[in-house]
Amino acid sequence: MERQDAGLAYMLQYENIAWYENGEVRILDRRIYPAKKEFVVCKTHLEVTKAITDMVTQSAGPFTAAPMGMALAAWECRDLSAQKQMEYLKQASETISHARPTTVSRMRLVTQACLPAAEKALAEGKRVDLAIRDYVVHANNLRYAKVGRCAKYLVDMFPDNGTVMTQCFAETILGMMLKECKARGKNIRLFCPETRPYFQGARLTATVCHDMGFDTTVITDNMPAFVMAKEHVDVFTCAADAICVDGYVFNKVGTSQIAICAKHFGIPMFVSGAPDVGHPTHDTVTIEMRDPKYSLEAMGVRTADEGLKGYYPAFDMTPPSLISGIATDKGMFSPYDLKRYFETETDNILTV
Amino acid sequence: MERQDAGLAYMLQYENIAWYENGEVRILDRRIYPAKKEFVVCKTHLEVTKAITDMVTQSAGPFTAAPMGMALAAWECRDLSAQKQMEYLKQASETISHARPTTVSRMRLVTQACLPAAEKALAEGKRVDLAIRDYVVHANNLRYAKVGRCAKYLVDMFPDNGTVMTQCFAETILGMMLKECKARGKNIRLFCPETRPYFQGARLTATVCHDMGFDTTVITDNMPAFVMAKEHVDVFTCAADAICVDGYVFNKVGTSQIAICAKHFGIPMFVSGAPDVGHPTHDTVTIEMRDPKYSLEAMGVRTADEGLKGYYPAFDMTPPSLISGIATDKGMFSPYDLKRYFETETDNILTV
Repeated sequence: MERQDAGLAYMLQYENIAWYENGEVRILDRRIYPAKKEFVVCKTHLEVTKAITDMVTQSAGPFTAAPMGMALAAWECRDLSAQKQMEYLKQASETISHARPTTVSRMRLVTQACLPAAEKALAEGKRVDLAIRDYVVHANNLRYAKVGRCAKYLVDMFPDNGTVMTQCFAETILGMMLKECKARGKNIRLFCPETRPYFQGARLTATVCHDMGFDTTVITDNMPAFVMAKEHVDVFTCAADAICVDGYVFNKVGTSQIAICAKHFGIPMFVSGAPDVGHPTHDTVTIEMRDPKYSLEAMGVRTADEGLKGYYPAFDMTPPSLISGIATDKGMFSPYDLKRYFETETDNILTV
Repeated sequence: MERQDAGLAYMLQYENIAWYENGEVRILDRRIYPAKKEFVVCKTHLEVTKAITDMVTQSAGPFTAAPMGMALAAWECRDLSAQKQMEYLKQASETISHARPTTVSRMRLVTQACLPAAEKALAEGKRVDLAIRDYVVHANNLRYAKVGRCAKYLVDMFPDNGTVMTQCFAETILGMMLKECKARGKNIRLFCPETRPYFQGARLTATVCHDMGFDTTVITDNMPAFVMAKEHVDVFTCAADAICVDGYVFNKVGTSQIAICAKHFGIPMFVSGAPDVGHPTHDTVTIEMRDPKYSLEAMGVRTADEGLKGYYPAFDMTPPSLISGIATDKGMFSPYDLKRYFETETDNILTV
């Protein structure tokens, strides 16, 4: 069985994202990584769904955790008839894909894609759970190859020696981007905003960049404009939770204000990933409002006094007017020209 | 002895900012407020200087703590000759005013202003420490009156029912602004960015706003653009650590990016305070770079992995092109027209 490139950092290994084995899915708890390396163990696909809802894993993580949850669902229903097993799996696909409201359509693509593998295994009398897990590894390898193509077009935009600002944790594309920089000898310095309230930038992105040998500085979320004014940032780049065909991009809250600052300072912004045919226009996207208490605490410590209100939109929307290009697997596109992406043959493989 | 208006919240009372008594200065430790109400006790003016450097108090706090430190210096040298006491106090004035590099010229105005009170007390054979403390209270009352005038011009810009975004902790002007809103029946809702890395917005500003009865929401520093896009913000306002006569404003890091976003969304930005004759142009201001470790931790808990670099500019610079007006004690001024402020008689009373 092929595995993700061994050169990538700890938390980009399959076993450290989400892994199905013997009736359970183990998910690296990114809420506490890198301070602690602990795994949440899920005994049912409902527990996997809850783990995704609770942000045990995020960025591309849920797109591995969710289909691993399908393997677990197959284990749960293994004693039913073949027909009942398929019904159970279809229901599980719906349940898991609704774990977070902003990604339902993309998540459903991933969980439904497990169903043919299950049917084939049932027809051949093989273990359905293992067939689904094998399929997940196969599908992820296709995904990594596709993301790798996005990364090549993205890294074309980087100087040989320069400074790149990131946002949140872009997981696969981040790993591929850094690998591509190394392969081409591009010596980039990274500034990573910490990404409140969960600190994914400080905890995850910065750790991966540092593990892979890059000069990496963590800044707080109120510092991007200062850094742009003082440190000669060449490029701002991020991935996306949804790239709408009309060129609007939904990503971790804070992306839009860094984009506004980048425009102000004349710094290009490149978003990597493929446009999402499930989101022809930006009004089809629901921004998830999470528990407001998280803006009243940091690393589990209360910051604000009792009685104050919190607020926590998980994502925000960046309009195409602020985006210099979308680095897709088919090349760099203007955000105003994404319909053209679908004019050539397109697979359903995600690019998270 | 007059005291600050009793209607203001806990941390705007003299005794809860900094207070000299019996050979010591007690300073409320704002680094841990409101979770804990503890005071740092300084036995020498060098300890007061260090407390200011270490950000035990900030915003307008140092402008009370520093002259209270002068009262303490007078206590330290009480057994010297009158001439030696004055020399000691002049040296203490220089020492204390250098506690933080961005505010040296303004702090020196405050500490040097204690010297005539000391001379008078020595000539009259009175206790110099108490004479300085009395002077500090008198000077602060003049300052509160002047800041109150700024607040009136600022609040003129607020709607009767609307939403205001703040930045960091503006202390006196914040209290005066809220008091003025109440007096005029202006029912404002506040969004307070938390202000990393010290969380002054979450811990101090939001607490004061809530204590004074306003609907207050704490957001993280990556949310201002989202809030501007979704919540109809009417005004963005902040105070300043330095308002240069050329219209550039230095304030807590993050101010400039909120200003850039406000411009993008068509929201006016008003800065309150008087222009600083000690800073005719923005190139006379030194931005303090503080210990970078603070961007690698939150509420004392490490966020990023070992080996990563931190970064911590205490302030940033907002250009006049982003500022709609400066609410001074003499009226609202265009940031391009601040020379006119000095055409009428001007006192040396600060407006922090």
